Amino acid sequence: MINGKTALFGFMAHPAKHSRSPKMHNLSFDYWHINARYLAFDVAPTDLTGAVAGIRSMGISGVNLSMPFKETVVPMLDGMTTRAKRIKAVNTIKNDHGKLIGDSTDGAGLYQDLQHQGYDLHGKNVVILGAGGAGKAIIAAALDYDVASVTVFKRANATYAQVDQWLNDLASQTDITMQLRPYDDLKAMQQAVQASDLIINATNVGMTTAGLPLPPQVMATLTPSQTVYDVIYQPLETEFLRQAKALGCATHNGLGMLIWQGALAFKFWTGKEMPIAAVTESIMSTAN
Amino acid sequence: MINGKTALFGFMAHPAKHSRSPKMHNLSFDYWHINARYLAFDVAPTDLTGAVAGIRSMGISGVNLSMPFKETVVPMLDGMTTRAKRIKAVNTIKNDHGKLIGDSTDGAGLYQDLQHQGYDLHGKNVVILGAGGAGKAIIAAALDYDVASVTVFKRANATYAQVDQWLNDLASQTDITMQLRPYDDLKAMQQAVQASDLIINATNVGMTTAGLPLPPQVMATLTPSQTVYDVIYQPLETEFLRQAKALGCATHNGLGMLIWQGALAFKFWTGKEMPIAAVTESIMSTAN
Repeated sequence: MINGKTALFGFMAHPAKHSRSPKMHNLSFDYWHINARYLAFDVAPTDLTGAVAGIRSMGISGVNLSMPFKETVVPMLDGMTTRAKRIKAVNTIKNDHGKLIGDSTDGAGLYQDLQHQGYDLHGKNVVILGAGGAGKAIIAAALDYDVASVTVFKRANATYAQVDQWLNDLASQTDITMQLRPYDDLKAMQQAVQASDLIINATNVGMTTAGLPLPPQVMATLTPSQTVYDVIYQPLETEFLRQAKALGCATHNGLGMLIWQGALAFKFWTGKEMPIAAVTESIMSTAN
Repeated sequence: MINGKTALFGFMAHPAKHSRSPKMHNLSFDYWHINARYLAFDVAPTDLTGAVAGIRSMGISGVNLSMPFKETVVPMLDGMTTRAKRIKAVNTIKNDHGKLIGDSTDGAGLYQDLQHQGYDLHGKNVVILGAGGAGKAIIAAALDYDVASVTVFKRANATYAQVDQWLNDLASQTDITMQLRPYDDLKAMQQAVQASDLIINATNVGMTTAGLPLPPQVMATLTPSQTVYDVIYQPLETEFLRQAKALGCATHNGLGMLIWQGALAFKFWTGKEMPIAAVTESIMSTAN
Protein backbone atom coordinates (compact mmCIF):
# COMPACT_ATOMS: atom_id res chain seq x y z
CA MET A 1 0.00 0.00 0.00
CA ILE A 2 1.56 3.24 -1.18
CA ASN A 3 1.40 6.25 1.13
CA GLY A 4 3.17 9.60 1.45
CA LYS A 5 6.33 7.95 2.76
CA THR A 6 6.73 5.37 0.00
CA ALA A 7 10.24 5.54 -1.47
CA LEU A 8 10.78 5.43 -5.23
CA PHE A 9 13.36 3.37 -7.09
CA GLY A 10 13.56 3.12 -10.84
CA PHE A 11 15.05 1.82 -14.04
CA MET A 12 16.33 4.34 -16.59
CA ALA A 13 17.10 3.25 -20.10
CA HIS A 14 16.05 3.79 -23.68
CA PRO A 15 13.97 1.80 -24.36
CA ALA A 16 12.89 0.86 -20.83
CA LYS A 17 9.31 -0.31 -20.85
CA HIS A 18 9.98 -4.02 -21.35
CA SER A 19 12.23 -4.28 -18.31
CA ARG A 20 11.66 -7.10 -15.86
CA SER A 21 13.34 -5.13 -13.08
CA PRO A 22 10.10 -3.60 -11.72
CA LYS A 23 8.75 -7.07 -11.11
CA MET A 24 11.94 -8.28 -9.39
CA HIS A 25 12.34 -5.34 -7.07
CA ASN A 26 8.69 -4.79 -6.17
CA LEU A 27 8.40 -8.45 -5.25
CA SER A 28 11.51 -8.06 -3.08
CA PHE A 29 10.22 -4.88 -1.40
CA ASP A 30 7.00 -6.72 -0.60
CA TYR A 31 8.94 -9.71 0.73
CA TRP A 32 10.80 -7.52 3.21
CA HIS A 33 7.84 -5.20 3.92
CA ILE A 34 9.87 -2.24 2.67
CA ASN A 35 7.70 0.78 1.84
CA ALA A 36 9.07 1.37 -1.65
CA ARG A 37 8.15 0.97 -5.30
CA TYR A 38 10.23 0.47 -8.44
CA LEU A 39 9.13 1.83 -11.82
CA ALA A 40 10.67 1.98 -15.29
CA PHE A 41 11.45 5.31 -16.98
CA ASP A 42 12.16 5.64 -20.66
CA VAL A 43 14.72 8.45 -20.71
CA ALA A 44 15.80 9.87 -24.05
CA PRO A 45 19.61 9.79 -24.53
CA THR A 46 19.75 13.60 -24.46
CA ASP A 47 17.72 13.76 -21.23
CA LEU A 48 20.10 12.09 -18.81
CA THR A 49 21.13 15.34 -17.13
CA GLY A 50 17.51 16.21 -16.40
CA ALA A 51 16.80 12.72 -15.14
CA VAL A 52 19.74 12.87 -12.72
CA ALA A 53 18.53 16.31 -11.58
CA GLY A 54 15.18 14.60 -10.98
CA ILE A 55 16.80 11.86 -8.87
CA ARG A 56 18.45 14.50 -6.70
CA SER A 57 15.55 16.97 -6.51
CA MET A 58 12.78 14.45 -5.99
CA GLY A 59 14.81 12.36 -3.59
CA ILE A 60 14.51 9.18 -5.65
CA SER A 61 16.18 6.51 -3.54
CA GLY A 62 17.97 4.53 -6.22
CA VAL A 63 18.01 3.62 -9.88
CA ASN A 64 19.31 1.01 -12.24
CA LEU A 65 20.62 2.20 -15.57
CA SER A 66 21.08 0.43 -18.84
CA MET A 67 21.96 1.47 -22.37
CA PRO A 68 22.86 4.16 -23.24
CA PHE A 69 23.55 5.59 -19.78
CA LYS A 70 25.98 3.27 -17.99
CA GLU A 71 29.05 5.28 -18.94
CA THR A 72 27.59 8.73 -19.62
CA VAL A 73 26.20 9.01 -16.09
CA VAL A 74 29.61 8.60 -14.44
CA PRO A 75 30.61 12.31 -14.44
CA MET A 76 27.30 13.13 -12.71
CA LEU A 77 27.96 10.92 -9.70
CA ASP A 78 29.40 11.80 -6.29
CA GLY A 79 31.19 8.50 -5.83
CA MET A 80 31.63 4.95 -7.12
CA THR A 81 32.33 1.52 -5.66
CA THR A 82 35.65 -0.15 -6.45
CA ARG A 83 34.16 -2.51 -9.00
CA ALA A 84 32.42 0.40 -10.76
CA LYS A 85 35.65 2.42 -10.83
CA ARG A 86 37.42 -0.45 -12.58
CA ILE A 87 35.15 -0.17 -15.62
CA LYS A 88 34.11 3.50 -15.31
CA ALA A 89 30.51 2.42 -15.77
CA VAL A 90 27.59 1.81 -13.43
CA ASN A 91 24.28 0.00 -13.63
CA THR A 92 23.14 1.02 -10.16
CA ILE A 93 22.96 4.31 -8.28
CA LYS A 94 22.17 4.72 -4.61
CA ASN A 95 20.97 8.10 -3.33
CA ASP A 96 22.81 8.17 -0.03
CA HIS A 97 21.38 11.24 1.73
CA GLY A 98 21.81 13.32 -1.40
CA LYS A 99 25.09 11.76 -2.56
CA LEU A 100 24.73 9.63 -5.68
CA ILE A 101 26.98 6.57 -5.43
CA GLY A 102 27.39 4.34 -8.46
CA ASP A 103 27.91 0.58 -8.45
CA SER A 104 28.38 -2.02 -11.16
CA THR A 105 26.62 -5.28 -10.34
CA ASP A 106 26.45 -6.88 -13.79
CA GLY A 107 29.76 -8.72 -13.69
CA ALA A 108 29.49 -9.72 -10.05
CA GLY A 109 25.96 -10.89 -10.86
CA LEU A 110 27.35 -13.59 -13.14
CA TYR A 111 29.76 -14.92 -10.52
CA GLN A 112 27.14 -14.75 -7.76
CA ASP A 113 24.80 -16.76 -9.96
CA LEU A 114 27.45 -19.43 -10.51
CA GLN A 115 28.30 -19.60 -6.80
CA HIS A 116 24.61 -19.77 -5.90
CA GLN A 117 24.33 -22.77 -8.23
CA GLY A 118 27.18 -24.50 -6.41
CA TYR A 119 30.05 -23.62 -8.74
CA ASP A 120 33.37 -23.05 -6.97
CA LEU A 121 35.30 -20.28 -8.77
CA HIS A 122 38.52 -20.78 -6.79
CA GLY A 123 41.52 -21.33 -9.05
CA LYS A 124 39.49 -21.59 -12.22
CA ASN A 125 40.76 -20.65 -15.69
CA VAL A 126 38.20 -18.45 -17.38
CA VAL A 127 37.76 -17.53 -21.03
CA ILE A 128 35.65 -14.48 -21.74
CA LEU A 129 34.43 -13.85 -25.28
CA GLY A 130 33.84 -10.14 -25.94
CA ALA A 131 34.98 -6.98 -24.17
CA GLY A 132 32.01 -4.66 -24.71
CA GLY A 133 29.98 -3.35 -21.78
CA ALA A 134 28.97 -6.77 -20.45
CA GLY A 135 32.39 -8.27 -21.14
CA LYS A 136 34.27 -5.53 -19.34
CA ALA A 137 31.97 -5.80 -16.31
CA ILE A 138 32.59 -9.56 -16.14
CA ILE A 139 36.35 -9.19 -16.65
CA ALA A 140 36.67 -6.55 -13.93
CA ALA A 141 34.46 -8.39 -11.44
CA ALA A 142 36.72 -11.46 -11.76
CA LEU A 143 39.19 -9.68 -9.47
CA ASP A 144 36.80 -10.26 -6.57
CA TYR A 145 36.19 -13.98 -7.20
CA ASP A 146 39.55 -15.71 -6.74
CA VAL A 147 39.91 -17.25 -10.20
CA ALA A 148 43.36 -18.25 -11.55
CA SER A 149 43.29 -16.69 -15.00
CA VAL A 150 41.16 -14.66 -17.35
CA THR A 151 41.76 -14.84 -21.10
CA VAL A 152 39.72 -12.40 -23.12
CA PHE A 153 39.02 -12.62 -26.84
CA LYS A 154 38.09 -9.44 -28.61
CA ARG A 155 37.91 -8.36 -32.23
CA ALA A 156 41.14 -6.68 -33.35
CA ASN A 157 39.41 -3.39 -34.12
CA ALA A 158 40.02 0.26 -33.21
CA THR A 159 39.44 -0.27 -29.47
CA TYR A 160 41.75 -3.30 -29.15
CA ALA A 161 44.82 -1.42 -27.93
CA GLN A 162 42.76 0.56 -25.45
CA VAL A 163 41.19 -2.57 -23.98
CA ASP A 164 44.63 -4.19 -23.86
CA GLN A 165 45.97 -1.27 -21.83
CA TRP A 166 42.94 -1.38 -19.56
CA LEU A 167 43.41 -5.12 -19.00
CA ASN A 168 47.08 -4.60 -18.18
CA ASP A 169 46.09 -1.99 -15.60
CA LEU A 170 43.66 -4.45 -14.06
CA ALA A 171 46.27 -7.21 -14.08
CA SER A 172 48.63 -4.98 -12.10
CA GLN A 173 46.07 -4.90 -9.26
CA THR A 174 45.73 -8.67 -8.89
CA ASP A 175 47.49 -12.04 -8.87
CA ILE A 176 45.08 -13.29 -11.53
CA THR A 177 46.74 -13.85 -14.91
CA MET A 178 44.91 -11.62 -17.38
CA GLN A 179 45.48 -11.46 -21.10
CA LEU A 180 43.81 -10.20 -24.22
CA ARG A 181 43.87 -12.08 -27.55
CA PRO A 182 42.42 -11.23 -30.95
CA TYR A 183 39.14 -12.95 -31.72
CA ASP A 184 40.53 -14.32 -34.97
CA ASP A 185 43.65 -15.86 -33.39
CA LEU A 186 42.37 -19.40 -33.78
CA LYS A 187 45.40 -21.05 -32.25
CA ALA A 188 45.32 -18.89 -29.13
CA MET A 189 41.59 -19.54 -28.83
CA GLN A 190 42.01 -23.31 -29.14
CA GLN A 191 44.73 -23.31 -26.50
CA ALA A 192 42.86 -21.04 -24.09
CA VAL A 193 39.53 -22.85 -24.43
CA GLN A 194 41.13 -26.26 -23.99
CA ALA A 195 42.91 -25.04 -20.83
CA SER A 196 39.78 -23.39 -19.44
CA ASP A 197 37.24 -24.45 -16.84
CA LEU A 198 34.67 -21.77 -17.57
CA ILE A 199 33.83 -20.19 -20.93
CA ILE A 200 31.67 -17.09 -20.92
CA ASN A 201 29.98 -15.61 -23.99
CA ALA A 202 29.72 -11.86 -23.43
CA THR A 203 29.05 -11.05 -27.09
CA ASN A 204 25.56 -10.74 -28.55
CA VAL A 205 26.21 -13.55 -31.04
CA GLY A 206 23.20 -15.81 -30.68
CA MET A 207 20.78 -13.07 -29.67
CA THR A 208 20.39 -10.44 -32.37
CA THR A 209 22.68 -12.28 -34.77
CA ALA A 210 22.70 -15.98 -35.56
CA GLY A 211 25.72 -18.20 -35.20
CA LEU A 212 28.16 -19.22 -32.50
CA PRO A 213 30.67 -17.15 -30.52
CA LEU A 214 33.24 -19.95 -30.94
CA PRO A 215 34.27 -21.35 -34.33
CA PRO A 216 33.23 -24.99 -35.01
CA GLN A 217 36.70 -26.42 -34.57
CA VAL A 218 36.91 -24.87 -31.08
CA MET A 219 33.34 -25.86 -30.18
CA ALA A 220 34.33 -29.44 -31.01
CA THR A 221 36.95 -29.46 -28.27
CA LEU A 222 34.50 -28.74 -25.43
CA THR A 223 34.33 -31.49 -22.82
CA PRO A 224 31.93 -32.38 -19.99
CA SER A 225 34.34 -31.02 -17.40
CA GLN A 226 33.79 -27.51 -18.73
CA THR A 227 31.13 -24.99 -17.82
CA VAL A 228 29.64 -22.68 -20.45
CA TYR A 229 27.87 -19.45 -19.55
CA ASP A 230 25.99 -17.28 -22.03
CA VAL A 231 25.01 -13.80 -20.85
CA ILE A 232 22.09 -13.89 -23.32
CA TYR A 233 18.66 -14.75 -21.88
CA GLN A 234 16.59 -14.06 -24.95
CA PRO A 235 16.48 -16.81 -26.18
CA LEU A 236 16.92 -18.76 -22.95
CA GLU A 237 18.93 -21.38 -24.80
CA THR A 238 21.19 -20.03 -27.51
CA GLU A 239 22.68 -22.27 -30.16
CA PHE A 240 25.96 -21.94 -28.24
CA LEU A 241 24.41 -23.36 -25.06
CA ARG A 242 22.50 -26.02 -26.98
CA GLN A 243 25.66 -27.38 -28.62
CA ALA A 244 27.70 -27.11 -25.43
CA LYS A 245 25.05 -29.04 -23.55
CA ALA A 246 25.04 -31.70 -26.29
CA LEU A 247 28.79 -32.03 -25.72
CA GLY A 248 28.15 -32.66 -22.02
CA CYS A 249 29.11 -29.24 -20.64
CA ALA A 250 27.28 -27.67 -17.72
CA THR A 251 25.44 -24.67 -19.20
CA HIS A 252 23.97 -21.46 -17.81
CA ASN A 253 21.94 -18.77 -19.57
CA GLY A 254 21.96 -15.09 -18.62
CA LEU A 255 18.76 -15.10 -16.62
CA GLY A 256 20.67 -15.86 -13.44
CA MET A 257 23.04 -12.95 -14.14
CA LEU A 258 20.02 -10.68 -14.72
CA ILE A 259 18.51 -11.73 -11.43
CA TRP A 260 21.76 -11.52 -9.49
CA GLN A 261 22.71 -8.08 -10.81
CA GLY A 262 19.31 -7.08 -9.42
CA ALA A 263 19.94 -8.90 -6.16
CA LEU A 264 23.25 -7.08 -5.70
CA ALA A 265 21.59 -3.73 -6.49
CA PHE A 266 18.83 -4.55 -3.99
CA LYS A 267 21.47 -5.36 -1.38
CA PHE A 268 23.35 -2.12 -2.18
CA TRP A 269 20.14 -0.11 -1.65
CA THR A 270 18.48 -1.91 1.25
CA GLY A 271 21.12 -4.10 2.89
CA LYS A 272 18.75 -7.05 2.37
CA GLU A 273 18.98 -10.22 0.30
CA MET A 274 16.67 -10.52 -2.68
CA PRO A 275 14.41 -13.60 -2.34
CA ILE A 276 16.07 -15.35 -5.29
CA ALA A 277 13.75 -18.36 -5.57
CA ALA A 278 10.57 -16.28 -5.63
CA VAL A 279 12.08 -13.74 -8.02
CA THR A 280 13.34 -16.47 -10.35
CA GLU A 281 9.92 -18.10 -10.44
CA SER A 282 8.27 -14.77 -11.18
CA ILE A 283 10.77 -13.85 -13.90
CA MET A 284 10.57 -17.30 -15.48
CA SER A 285 6.80 -17.01 -15.70
CA THR A 286 7.26 -14.12 -18.16
CA ALA A 287 10.46 -15.29 -19.86
CA ASN A 288 10.18 -16.50 -23.43
CA MET B 1 0.74 -4.87 -10.26
CA ILE B 2 3.56 -2.58 -11.37
CA ASN B 3 5.39 -3.45 -14.57
CA GLY B 4 7.69 -1.67 -17.04
CA LYS B 5 4.79 0.33 -18.48
CA THR B 6 3.41 1.67 -15.19
CA ALA B 7 3.00 5.45 -15.37
CA LEU B 8 4.13 7.66 -12.48
CA PHE B 9 2.21 10.56 -10.98
CA GLY B 10 3.31 12.43 -7.91
CA PHE B 11 2.89 15.07 -5.26
CA MET B 12 5.64 17.67 -4.85
CA ALA B 13 5.74 19.84 -1.78
CA HIS B 14 7.87 20.64 1.24
CA PRO B 15 7.02 18.92 3.47
CA ALA B 16 5.21 16.22 1.45
CA LYS B 17 5.31 12.95 3.32
CA HIS B 18 2.03 13.34 5.22
CA SER B 19 0.00 13.88 2.06
CA ARG B 20 -3.21 11.91 1.60
CA SER B 21 -3.04 12.33 -2.16
CA PRO B 22 -1.19 9.04 -2.81
CA LYS B 23 -4.06 7.17 -1.18
CA MET B 24 -6.74 9.04 -3.16
CA HIS B 25 -5.12 8.66 -6.54
CA ASN B 26 -3.86 5.10 -6.20
CA LEU B 27 -7.32 3.99 -5.12
CA SER B 28 -8.73 5.76 -8.19
CA PHE B 29 -6.16 4.24 -10.56
CA ASP B 30 -7.09 0.82 -9.19
CA TYR B 31 -10.81 1.56 -9.55
CA TRP B 32 -10.36 2.31 -13.27
CA HIS B 33 -7.68 -0.36 -13.83
CA ILE B 34 -5.24 2.33 -14.95
CA ASN B 35 -1.60 1.14 -14.91
CA ALA B 36 -0.24 4.05 -12.87
CA ARG B 37 1.05 4.87 -9.40
CA TYR B 38 1.12 8.10 -7.39
CA LEU B 39 3.90 8.84 -4.89
CA ALA B 40 4.84 11.82 -2.74
CA PHE B 41 8.15 13.67 -3.21
CA ASP B 42 9.56 16.04 -0.64
CA VAL B 43 11.26 18.63 -2.83
CA ALA B 44 13.40 21.30 -1.20
CA PRO B 45 12.32 24.84 -2.15
CA THR B 46 15.60 25.37 -4.05
CA ASP B 47 15.18 22.12 -5.99
CA LEU B 48 12.07 22.91 -8.03
CA THR B 49 14.00 23.40 -11.28
CA GLY B 50 15.61 19.99 -10.95
CA ALA B 51 12.30 18.37 -10.09
CA VAL B 52 10.64 19.85 -13.18
CA ALA B 53 13.61 18.65 -15.25
CA GLY B 54 12.93 15.24 -13.74
CA ILE B 55 9.24 15.37 -14.75
CA ARG B 56 10.26 16.11 -18.32
CA SER B 57 13.25 13.76 -18.57
CA MET B 58 11.70 10.79 -16.81
CA GLY B 59 8.35 11.22 -18.51
CA ILE B 60 6.42 11.57 -15.26
CA SER B 61 2.78 11.76 -16.34
CA GLY B 62 1.48 14.34 -13.89
CA VAL B 63 2.02 15.97 -10.53
CA ASN B 64 0.21 17.90 -7.87
CA LEU B 65 2.08 20.73 -6.22
CA SER B 66 1.59 22.43 -2.91
CA MET B 67 3.52 24.96 -0.88
CA PRO B 68 5.91 26.46 -1.75
CA PHE B 69 5.69 25.64 -5.47
CA LYS B 70 2.24 26.68 -6.70
CA GLU B 71 3.40 30.05 -7.98
CA THR B 72 7.14 29.48 -8.51
CA VAL B 73 6.51 26.66 -11.00
CA VAL B 74 4.48 28.85 -13.36
CA PRO B 75 7.43 30.15 -15.46
CA MET B 76 8.54 26.54 -16.05
CA LEU B 77 5.27 25.48 -17.69
CA ASP B 78 4.35 25.28 -21.36
CA GLY B 79 0.73 26.28 -20.82
CA MET B 80 -2.04 26.85 -18.28
CA THR B 81 -5.80 26.41 -18.10
CA THR B 82 -8.00 29.51 -17.89
CA ARG B 83 -8.67 29.09 -14.18
CA ALA B 84 -4.93 28.72 -13.50
CA LYS B 85 -4.13 31.80 -15.55
CA ARG B 86 -6.54 33.85 -13.42
CA ILE B 87 -4.46 33.26 -10.29
CA LYS B 88 -1.06 32.64 -11.90
CA ALA B 89 -0.72 29.56 -9.73
CA VAL B 90 -1.19 25.84 -10.27
CA ASN B 91 -1.71 22.81 -8.07
CA THR B 92 -1.75 20.31 -10.94
CA ILE B 93 0.52 19.66 -13.93
CA LYS B 94 -0.24 17.32 -16.79
CA ASN B 95 2.62 16.07 -18.96
CA ASP B 96 0.88 16.15 -22.34
CA HIS B 97 3.40 14.43 -24.66
CA GLY B 98 6.23 16.53 -23.27
CA LYS B 99 4.27 19.76 -22.79
CA LEU B 100 3.67 20.64 -19.14
CA ILE B 101 0.20 22.14 -18.73
CA GLY B 102 -0.78 23.67 -15.39
CA ASP B 103 -4.23 23.69 -13.83
CA SER B 104 -5.66 25.06 -10.59
CA THR B 105 -8.27 22.76 -9.09
CA ASP B 106 -8.35 24.01 -5.48
CA GLY B 107 -11.02 26.68 -5.90
CA ALA B 108 -13.17 24.64 -8.25
CA GLY B 109 -12.80 21.77 -5.79
CA LEU B 110 -14.74 23.74 -3.17
CA TYR B 111 -17.63 24.49 -5.51
CA GLN B 112 -17.68 20.93 -6.89
CA ASP B 113 -17.90 19.65 -3.33
CA LEU B 114 -20.87 21.93 -2.58
CA GLN B 115 -22.67 20.95 -5.79
CA HIS B 116 -21.99 17.28 -5.11
CA GLN B 117 -23.65 17.73 -1.72
CA GLY B 118 -26.73 19.22 -3.40
CA TYR B 119 -26.00 22.91 -2.96
CA ASP B 120 -27.19 25.10 -5.86
CA LEU B 121 -24.71 27.93 -6.39
CA HIS B 122 -26.87 29.78 -8.91
CA GLY B 123 -27.45 33.41 -7.90
CA LYS B 124 -25.86 33.05 -4.50
CA ASN B 125 -24.15 35.85 -2.59
CA VAL B 126 -20.78 34.65 -1.36
CA VAL B 127 -18.50 36.06 1.34
CA ILE B 128 -14.90 34.88 1.21
CA LEU B 129 -12.66 35.50 4.21
CA GLY B 130 -9.00 35.76 3.22
CA ALA B 131 -7.25 36.29 -0.10
CA GLY B 132 -4.09 34.20 0.28
CA GLY B 133 -3.39 31.22 -1.96
CA ALA B 134 -6.56 29.32 -1.07
CA GLY B 135 -8.69 32.47 -1.02
CA LYS B 136 -7.55 33.61 -4.46
CA ALA B 137 -8.17 30.18 -5.94
CA ILE B 138 -11.72 30.18 -4.52
CA ILE B 139 -12.37 33.76 -5.64
CA ALA B 140 -11.17 33.11 -9.19
CA ALA B 141 -13.03 29.82 -9.53
CA ALA B 142 -16.29 31.57 -8.63
CA LEU B 143 -16.34 32.91 -12.20
CA ASP B 144 -17.20 29.40 -13.42
CA TYR B 145 -20.01 28.74 -10.94
CA ASP B 146 -22.76 31.25 -11.69
CA VAL B 147 -22.94 32.98 -8.30
CA ALA B 148 -24.40 36.51 -8.01
CA SER B 149 -21.72 38.22 -5.93
CA VAL B 150 -18.41 37.67 -4.21
CA THR B 151 -17.37 39.91 -1.32
CA VAL B 152 -13.83 39.33 -0.11
CA PHE B 153 -12.44 40.40 3.25
CA LYS B 154 -8.71 40.77 3.53
CA ARG B 155 -6.37 42.40 5.98
CA ALA B 156 -5.52 45.96 4.94
CA ASN B 157 -1.80 45.19 4.64
CA ALA B 158 0.87 45.71 1.97
CA THR B 159 -0.81 43.43 -0.59
CA TYR B 160 -4.27 44.97 -0.24
CA ALA B 161 -4.05 47.35 -3.22
CA GLN B 162 -2.61 44.61 -5.41
CA VAL B 163 -5.39 42.16 -4.57
CA ASP B 164 -7.93 44.96 -5.14
CA GLN B 165 -6.54 45.54 -8.63
CA TRP B 166 -6.54 41.79 -9.33
CA LEU B 167 -10.16 41.53 -8.19
CA ASN B 168 -11.16 44.45 -10.41
CA ASP B 169 -9.52 42.70 -13.37
CA LEU B 170 -11.47 39.56 -12.58
CA ALA B 171 -14.70 41.54 -12.21
CA SER B 172 -14.21 42.98 -15.69
CA GLN B 173 -14.41 39.42 -17.10
CA THR B 174 -17.72 38.48 -15.50
CA ASP B 175 -21.25 39.66 -14.55
CA ILE B 176 -20.58 38.60 -10.98
CA THR B 177 -20.35 41.55 -8.58
CA MET B 178 -16.91 41.34 -6.97
CA GLN B 179 -15.56 43.57 -4.25
CA LEU B 180 -12.79 43.70 -1.72
CA ARG B 181 -13.22 45.06 1.82
CA PRO B 182 -10.74 45.46 4.68
CA TYR B 183 -10.95 42.72 7.29
CA ASP B 184 -11.38 45.29 10.07
CA ASP B 185 -14.29 47.13 8.39
CA LEU B 186 -16.87 45.77 10.82
CA LYS B 187 -19.81 47.54 9.29
CA ALA B 188 -19.05 46.28 5.78
CA MET B 189 -18.56 42.79 7.17
CA GLN B 190 -21.86 42.85 9.06
CA GLN B 191 -23.69 44.01 5.94
CA ALA B 192 -22.01 41.54 3.61
CA VAL B 193 -22.43 38.56 5.92
CA GLN B 194 -26.08 39.36 6.60
CA ALA B 195 -26.73 39.61 2.85
CA SER B 196 -24.85 36.41 2.06
CA ASP B 197 -25.95 32.84 1.39
CA LEU B 198 -22.52 31.24 1.63
CA ILE B 199 -19.64 32.24 3.89
CA ILE B 200 -16.24 30.69 3.20
CA ASN B 201 -13.30 30.79 5.59
CA ALA B 202 -10.15 30.76 3.48
CA THR B 203 -7.88 31.95 6.29
CA ASN B 204 -5.99 29.58 8.58
CA VAL B 205 -7.72 30.97 11.66
CA GLY B 206 -8.91 27.90 13.52
CA MET B 207 -6.13 25.64 12.28
CA THR B 208 -2.72 26.84 13.38
CA THR B 209 -4.15 29.73 15.36
CA ALA B 210 -7.09 29.65 17.73
CA GLY B 211 -10.09 31.90 17.39
CA LEU B 212 -12.75 32.71 14.81
CA PRO B 213 -12.45 34.24 11.35
CA LEU B 214 -15.55 36.38 12.08
CA PRO B 215 -15.82 38.66 15.12
CA PRO B 216 -18.42 37.62 17.74
CA GLN B 217 -20.93 40.31 16.83
CA VAL B 218 -20.91 39.05 13.18
CA MET B 219 -21.02 35.40 14.19
CA ALA B 220 -24.13 36.23 16.21
CA THR B 221 -26.01 37.27 13.06
CA LEU B 222 -25.66 33.90 11.31
CA THR B 223 -28.99 32.23 10.58
CA PRO B 224 -30.07 28.70 9.58
CA SER B 225 -30.60 29.79 5.96
CA GLN B 226 -26.86 30.33 5.58
CA THR B 227 -24.15 27.88 4.63
CA VAL B 228 -20.71 28.05 6.20
CA TYR B 229 -17.64 26.46 4.59
CA ASP B 230 -14.25 26.19 6.24
CA VAL B 231 -11.34 25.20 3.98
CA ILE B 232 -9.60 23.76 7.07
CA TYR B 233 -9.83 19.99 7.56
CA GLN B 234 -7.45 19.64 10.46
CA PRO B 235 -9.36 19.78 12.77
CA LEU B 236 -12.40 18.45 10.92
CA GLU B 237 -14.63 20.79 12.93
CA THR B 238 -13.13 24.17 13.68
CA GLU B 239 -14.57 26.43 16.34
CA PHE B 240 -16.01 28.49 13.45
CA LEU B 241 -17.95 25.49 12.11
CA ARG B 242 -18.97 24.38 15.61
CA GLN B 243 -20.52 27.76 16.43
CA ALA B 244 -22.12 28.12 12.98
CA LYS B 245 -23.68 24.70 13.34
CA ALA B 246 -25.00 25.64 16.80
CA LEU B 247 -26.66 28.63 15.15
CA GLY B 248 -28.38 26.31 12.70
CA CYS B 249 -26.20 26.90 9.63
CA ALA B 250 -25.34 24.14 7.20
CA THR B 251 -21.59 23.54 7.63
CA HIS B 252 -18.84 21.98 5.52
CA ASN B 253 -15.22 21.31 6.39
CA GLY B 254 -12.35 21.35 3.88
CA LEU B 255 -12.12 17.60 3.43
CA GLY B 256 -14.55 17.73 0.52
CA MET B 257 -12.48 20.46 -1.12
CA LEU B 258 -9.34 18.36 -0.62
CA ILE B 259 -11.00 15.37 -2.25
CA TRP B 260 -12.55 17.36 -5.10
CA GLN B 261 -9.36 19.20 -5.99
CA GLY B 262 -7.92 15.70 -6.34
CA ALA B 263 -10.92 14.52 -8.36
CA LEU B 264 -10.52 17.43 -10.78
CA ALA B 265 -6.79 16.73 -11.11
CA PHE B 266 -7.57 13.05 -11.75
CA LYS B 267 -10.07 14.07 -14.42
CA PHE B 268 -7.51 16.45 -15.96
CA TRP B 269 -4.96 13.62 -16.18
CA THR B 270 -7.09 10.63 -17.08
CA GLY B 271 -10.43 11.95 -18.33
CA LYS B 272 -12.09 9.75 -15.68
CA GLU B 273 -14.17 10.56 -12.61
CA MET B 274 -12.63 9.86 -9.22
CA PRO B 275 -14.73 7.37 -7.23
CA ILE B 276 -15.70 9.98 -4.63
CA ALA B 277 -17.52 7.72 -2.17
CA ALA B 278 -14.71 5.18 -1.94
CA VAL B 279 -12.05 7.92 -1.74
CA THR B 280 -13.98 9.78 0.96
CA GLU B 281 -14.32 6.63 3.02
CA SER B 282 -10.62 5.90 2.66
CA ILE B 283 -9.58 9.46 3.53
CA MET B 284 -11.96 9.61 6.49
CA SER B 285 -10.45 6.43 7.89
CA THR B 286 -7.15 8.27 8.34
CA ALA B 287 -8.51 11.76 9.12
CA ASN B 288 -8.14 12.99 12.65
